[in-house]
Amino acid sequence: MARRLFELCGRDPARIFSPYCWRIRMALAHKGLAFEAVPWRFTDKQALAFANHDKVPVLQDGECTVADSWEIATYLDAAYPGAPSLMRGNAEPYLFISAWTDTVLHAGLARLIVSDIPPLLDEADRAYFVQSRQARFGRTLAEVTAGREERLPEFRASLLPLRHALRGRDFLGGAAPDYADYIVFGGFMWARVVSALDLLEPTDTIHGWRERMLDLFGGMPRATPAMAG
Amino acid sequence: MARRLFELCGRDPARIFSPYCWRIRMALAHKGLAFEAVPWRFTDKQALAFANHDKVPVLQDGECTVADSWEIATYLDAAYPGAPSLMRGNAEPYLFISAWTDTVLHAGLARLIVSDIPPLLDEADRAYFVQSRQARFGRTLAEVTAGREERLPEFRASLLPLRHALRGRDFLGGAAPDYADYIVFGGFMWARVVSALDLLEPTDTIHGWRERMLDLFGGMPRATPAMAG
Repeated sequence: MARRLFELCGRDPARIFSPYCWRIRMALAHKGLAFEAVPWRFTDKQALAFANHDKVPVLQDGECTVADSWEIATYLDAAYPGAPSLMRGNAEPYLFISAWTDTVLHAGLARLIVSDIPPLLDEADRAYFVQSRQARFGRTLAEVTAGREERLPEFRASLLPLRHALRGRDFLGGAAPDYADYIVFGGFMWARVVSALDLLEPTDTIHGWRERMLDLFGGMPRATPAMAG
Repeated sequence: MARRLFELCGRDPARIFSPYCWRIRMALAHKGLAFEAVPWRFTDKQALAFANHDKVPVLQDGECTVADSWEIATYLDAAYPGAPSLMRGNAEPYLFISAWTDTVLHAGLARLIVSDIPPLLDEADRAYFVQSRQARFGRTLAEVTAGREERLPEFRASLLPLRHALRGRDFLGGAAPDYADYIVFGGFMWARVVSALDLLEPTDTIHGWRERMLDLFGGMPRATPAMAG
């Protein structure tokens, strides 16, 4: 049976933007596992009924169906021990990196880019997205991202732990990337695909790391349709 | 030859307060390695000349001398592979946890507790500490910690990644503590030994974790002389 990854996309199915789907897209490439990309949209809940889940990523791998990016990553290391490891036999410390990414990086990015997303969605998804996100933030999405250029220094300052963690090494995984890199990079791909906002200064250590990440796997991330340059 | 750990202390040699020394004190207990504690003070630079270093922790382990907490932790896993592992063969993701601890936890704690330290130091150390820290902060230490009670909610909010990382598990290491826990706990021991300030609310997930950490190794951390209750 085939290997299929359900991934969130915009009106254009090539515009893959969920940070959690990006974690798994990179993880599959890291392990050298080919897959068929199945475009999915927020309002396609029915398409995931087989997985008993309502969010992507969902991986169908032969007889196995796995939902949730963390579950998929640990599944991949367990199911393919001969392929390059994502977490080298110890997933625990990666949960901290994931917690930081969710609560600091994603939260910070959302306040900068969330209003850039609706124009990229099809009609049904746009209505769903705007309504659900406005309810979450308690204001319009334009209000959420208002004054974002002025808030960039504060966002960049919030990335200090990432900047420090990259000192003296090319990747969070060390000399080569591992799942720590894919966790954090997912956030930056989310932003890159939907927004033209310049998040990082070119002299930033994180900028250099993001460039190296964009070049991985034959430049697959860089080649993905994006609003950023 | 003996195993000796040089640790920063106050006037009272039992008042061990450096967060980096706490990382190693816990790491040695984790590995079941007994050691002789050698009290060290900021102005004892001469006592570390043998290590060609000017800061603690410094570990003397038979013929080996290792300085810097990160170097010591990786040394201990390499030198004692049969003892319980600190980082389970993959140190890379722990560097992110260390970077977060240095830049967020320690930086936040310093702004709350740094003025509590001088009264605990002997005369020579007090003069050194006040002068060097005032130069670092660009103001008096009393000014640095002014209004700290009002700033506690902001400090607690900055710990959100740690709070999320502890959801559904007892320790950052999973069911049992590992070096991720000792890295973060070092900051809390620093605060506990020097300051009576109530950093955490009793209902906080992090509070429960800190209680479990204080109970480790027969309650050794809890039994260390401290200003906190």
